[in-house]
Amino acid sequence: MWFQKEIRLPAVKRGFHLITDLLEAHLPELESINVGLAHIFIKHTSASLTINENADSTVRQDFERHFNHMVPENQPYYRHTLEGADDMPAHLKAAILGTSVTIPIRNGAFNLGTWQGVYLCEHRDNASKRTVVVTLQGE
Amino acid sequence: MWFQKEIRLPAVKRGFHLITDLLEAHLPELESINVGLAHIFIKHTSASLTINENADSTVRQDFERHFNHMVPENQPYYRHTLEGADDMPAHLKAAILGTSVTIPIRNGAFNLGTWQGVYLCEHRDNASKRTVVVTLQGE
Amino acid sequence: MWFQKEIRLPAVKRGFHLITDLLEAHLPELESINVGLAHIFIKHTSASLTINENADSTVRQDFERHFNHMVPENQPYYRHTLEGADDMPAHLKAAILGTSVTIPIRNGAFNLGTWQGVYLCEHRDNASKRTVVVTLQGE
Repeated sequence: MWFQKEIRLPAVKRGFHLITDLLEAHLPELESINVGLAHIFIKHTSASLTINENADSTVRQDFERHFNHMVPENQPYYRHTLEGADDMPAHLKAAILGTSVTIPIRNGAFNLGTWQGVYLCEHRDNASKRTVVVTLQGE
Repeated sequence: MWFQKEIRLPAVKRGFHLITDLLEAHLPELESINVGLAHIFIKHTSASLTINENADSTVRQDFERHFNHMVPENQPYYRHTLEGADDMPAHLKAAILGTSVTIPIRNGAFNLGTWQGVYLCEHRDNASKRTVVVTLQGE
Repeated sequence: MWFQKEIRLPAVKRGFHLITDLLEAHLPELESINVGLAHIFIKHTSASLTINENADSTVRQDFERHFNHMVPENQPYYRHTLEGADDMPAHLKAAILGTSVTIPIRNGAFNLGTWQGVYLCEHRDNASKRTVVVTLQGE
């Protein structure tokens, strides 16, 4: 069984945001899969997806602070600067974190660990809505 | 053909550890797949999986040293500090390296390059056993 | 439907290179898949794959400059130094960016965003040809 749909995510502020519940609400098809995989792919190059801690919001705040430290704005070696100081760092952060996550499906639901959630990582200052392609497969 | 199982990995010290042989020993089902994919997913947010050099142990030691340099403990901007100095860096390293790897299957075995192995990346000082979900599919 | 093939990529200079068109030219089988996934896996530990901006070459140049800054050569803590100053950083960059990308397939083609392309990230100074394993599945 294959299923693919595009989901338009609400625009969010620059930072790291939990979207696990939002994804599940858009994916009633999960319930029909006993064993399978969910592939979630963001169609952008300045936002990304990752999986991390789902409970304490300071984790997500520290992600934003550390990534700004590890991939700073206004580095003298940047040449791609026309779209703003946040643009080139956004491309780099997106590649470091990744464009997609793949999650096992078991008994009609994401088979995540207790403390795991899916993050939408928004790396631009003024981003509009982002689109993800979700591909579900299984039996 | 779909197959999914959880494997409990032995507890390891903080650092980077080869687990290719251990995974293969737990996956006799690989032999029945001619062409397919293996998805290996760790159900934790302070340990991760990656694929890298399988021969020289100094590579794995340098991974530990460089990740400690790139994602240091005790950064003044960390707010999530209650669980110890190694905790927030562990979440960050896990997101940078990733929660899962997907490996092609060919003729009943992982289709890896000669020098490739699967690493369990343990980012906590005192971690217990970690669980991975392995999903095999193919024909 | 499953399909797996190895593609030998041309040798490239150290840096970040768009290979989307090259991959599509080697994959006429894409056309027979309505809904599916393409998994592209590089069989090496000092080169990697990622997805990022496909238009402005300065983005790819800034990737090279930033990764050299974030993962410098000749760090005093490196022990794996026998194969040259570019070797250990190459392993680290490969793990940060990743060994594979998975792309949704829709209507016989990669379902990428408008600005997305696949990058071959060559981290060695004098690399020869690299091999990728492409696994297509779908219906």
